[in-house]
Amino acid sequence: MAKEKKVEQITDMEKDFAQWYTDVCRKAELIDYSSIKGMFIYRPYGYAIWENIQRIMDGMFKACGHENVYLPMLIPESLLQKEKDHVEGFAPECAWVTMGGSEKLEERYCIRPTSETLFCEHYKNVIQSHRDLPKLYNQWCSVLRWEKTSRPFLRHREFLWQEGHTMHATAEEAREETQRMLNIYADFMENVLAMPVVKGQKTEKEKFNGAEETYAVECMMHDKKALQAGTSHYFGDGFARAFDITFTGADNQLHHPFQTSWGVSTRMIGGIIMTHGDNNGLVLPPRIAPTQVIIVPIAQHKAGVLEANRQVMDRLKAAGIRVKIDDSDKAPGWKFAEYEMKGVPLRLELGPKDIEQNQCVLVRRDSGEKSVAGLDGIEETVSGMLDAIHDGLYAKAKKNLEENTFPAASLEEAKQIQEERGGFIKTMWCGDIACEEKMKEVAGMSSRCVPFVQERLGETCPCCGRPASKIVYWGVAY
Amino acid sequence: MAKEKKVEQITDMEKDFAQWYTDVCRKAELIDYSSIKGMFIYRPYGYAIWENIQRIMDGMFKACGHENVYLPMLIPESLLQKEKDHVEGFAPECAWVTMGGSEKLEERYCIRPTSETLFCEHYKNVIQSHRDLPKLYNQWCSVLRWEKTSRPFLRHREFLWQEGHTMHATAEEAREETQRMLNIYADFMENVLAMPVVKGQKTEKEKFNGAEETYAVECMMHDKKALQAGTSHYFGDGFARAFDITFTGADNQLHHPFQTSWGVSTRMIGGIIMTHGDNNGLVLPPRIAPTQVIIVPIAQHKAGVLEANRQVMDRLKAAGIRVKIDDSDKAPGWKFAEYEMKGVPLRLELGPKDIEQNQCVLVRRDSGEKSVAGLDGIEETVSGMLDAIHDGLYAKAKKNLEENTFPAASLEEAKQIQEERGGFIKTMWCGDIACEEKMKEVAGMSSRCVPFVQERLGETCPCCGRPASKIVYWGVAY
Repeated sequence: MAKEKKVEQITDMEKDFAQWYTDVCRKAELIDYSSIKGMFIYRPYGYAIWENIQRIMDGMFKACGHENVYLPMLIPESLLQKEKDHVEGFAPECAWVTMGGSEKLEERYCIRPTSETLFCEHYKNVIQSHRDLPKLYNQWCSVLRWEKTSRPFLRHREFLWQEGHTMHATAEEAREETQRMLNIYADFMENVLAMPVVKGQKTEKEKFNGAEETYAVECMMHDKKALQAGTSHYFGDGFARAFDITFTGADNQLHHPFQTSWGVSTRMIGGIIMTHGDNNGLVLPPRIAPTQVIIVPIAQHKAGVLEANRQVMDRLKAAGIRVKIDDSDKAPGWKFAEYEMKGVPLRLELGPKDIEQNQCVLVRRDSGEKSVAGLDGIEETVSGMLDAIHDGLYAKAKKNLEENTFPAASLEEAKQIQEERGGFIKTMWCGDIACEEKMKEVAGMSSRCVPFVQERLGETCPCCGRPASKIVYWGVAY
Repeated sequence: MAKEKKVEQITDMEKDFAQWYTDVCRKAELIDYSSIKGMFIYRPYGYAIWENIQRIMDGMFKACGHENVYLPMLIPESLLQKEKDHVEGFAPECAWVTMGGSEKLEERYCIRPTSETLFCEHYKNVIQSHRDLPKLYNQWCSVLRWEKTSRPFLRHREFLWQEGHTMHATAEEAREETQRMLNIYADFMENVLAMPVVKGQKTEKEKFNGAEETYAVECMMHDKKALQAGTSHYFGDGFARAFDITFTGADNQLHHPFQTSWGVSTRMIGGIIMTHGDNNGLVLPPRIAPTQVIIVPIAQHKAGVLEANRQVMDRLKAAGIRVKIDDSDKAPGWKFAEYEMKGVPLRLELGPKDIEQNQCVLVRRDSGEKSVAGLDGIEETVSGMLDAIHDGLYAKAKKNLEENTFPAASLEEAKQIQEERGGFIKTMWCGDIACEEKMKEVAGMSSRCVPFVQERLGETCPCCGRPASKIVYWGVAY
């Protein structure tokens, strides 16, 4: 009964995907609404996922020499305006501070929507010589974009992210950095979040305001829509020129350095939900799950049961596994449903009969598969099963991506596939923005990226019939 | 030569303490200025200190059951106004957002100066039953206070901090929490930062806006001024009533929960600088030093020297010590001065003769003491020496605190001691705010706290002559 009631709270995804998503966010206690539209509260369980993401990514960044800094949250309007394309892109989304205490400010300040301009101002101070390069800085913070619509994790007015900003002596080095960080994102998403990605370059239309080139990792959600999960930008020396940043080279001449930036945000948590979740709720990839194993004692009032359960918990903890026990007086059925909804990867049940036989029951959240395991070596069994869950989640998501990526030879075909099947549709493309706009108009899809892994689907652009040498992925995006 | 030049950059503290402080902040590359007055840039070295502080404190918070969350950075004006004392205290320091994109907002939003009101709004949603209590939340974020004056780390318009906000079923539990967190702060400052503290209660005049009781840890700086390094507040059910937060008790009746909040900030880094620093620059307590040991190879061009140095580095790293090597082509003298200025607790020198004798030279930053140590067991030697440095720093700071805390029997005596010696001055006090104001007027000192460790210095208040049963600490504060 308790279980059925619990599960009822979540709308089936087949019935209403958007409602399913919101239900999971709320019922799994990931997020709450605040009194300002579009500004959300990251609750302990949602924030704990972000902490795990941060910890792992931060280690990856530092392993390749990046250092963390913290720059102000406010940008003077004059500073934001120094790079033309950049300000055009962001000014419409800025929240403006106009009063400090009871005084009207002489210049208004925007709350950072991104920090390229602030980093440039600082880099101008701290870069003098080629010996000061590269500068490999990263910042964990929140940014604010005054969006009209919002959805938990996917589009907030304020969201948590990291923004890397680097400066290099040569264009080549900066381009390498752009690719390195895109690869780190892809690696993280696949090997930690179990989310397969398509890596590629954004088109001119879709690139970041002020960047020369933007690269992205694109993921496919359960509903076959696309989620841009991370981006990496190459700026050339455009900002450096606008901000007059120079360094003395080994040749004793003044040069402008070359710049990159790259970022991922709590939007990835939305990606996790929509990649792995099911009608019973959240399904968390084990490597970022706040709780990897939930222990549910069976017949816990019987002598020795709780002690035996706690012993197993202590052993798993000692093996570095994130484990919790629920020894509350709620019924096991209620507990099963609760931790299923919260997406805990593995449930361990231990009752009097199991104790007698020196075994326990393990239930996988991803497949529902139930197995009996000996308590000897339970650490290795659990740890192996967590890896297997990761692999299983990845394989399932990869299958979803592959089975829902379709080639199309004409605009009409692309439109039809999108209407009937959804997913990513790949076509040849001439590179013209007019054809991109036509695809949007006719088939409702935007370009996702020009994938690094290219193939030959024909000789001409399906939108205009002109010669085309590259394929592009199209999709409906979050 | 190089060394002398380096040291020259820092003003002697005896000559100009404020300039010495600013020099250390800038030259040790802890902080940089931004184009907005009072908003600073935390540079990699300064931020790395904060990361170590965060990591250790966060572990301490979590060990007693606290969970991290993230709430919005903006507070609607109507929400801020719900608690009268609170808004009176903070409104004059708020930065106000009045525009979102190109539209004027219907209500203005202030950038959080502190988040009690936001937490109350959220707690109203998530607290229904006594089973939902206690709620033990903490948030790492930045806050903004539009101050007129500013100094690196000590007073920023925007600064990084943590703010704990908890809700409890009973006043007693909330009071316990207030004390628990004050004790955690004191423990952290003494055992991690090597900063001795005076624990006590703030007076009515000095307490937090909206709190019933405020407790603080007060530290003494090199110049004998006081630094309030952390505070813990007990709110009773005042905010809960103002925000209409209720829960159903075990008695099936509705009750208001009882609240606390507590915070420390990057101001502690200012405290570290002014507690331990000297005329050669920064002196970092080993437990939060980003680099605990700097290895400087001697005659590094000679065969085998760099290899031997790197071996020592790898061994120390493996032992969990934060160690770096400087194998750049700069002269050893330059390196010595550089890492002295940066406050690295221990320098390890290893040259051809040392290698021959299977030894190295260790130089302590705190005392300048030089010793020779065998390479066998160097891990234990270094780790023991880091602990000794911690103890040495603490003892020195404790001596400074004790030798500069004076009893005074009259207002005149208090004034004279402050003028001639500075430091903390302790007197009896009747508890009247008028006497506090008189002390400020006559001797230029504010009350620091009514210390937990009380003593009897007389029977009457030196300001008014009325009966007094408690002592209070006075001082000039940052």
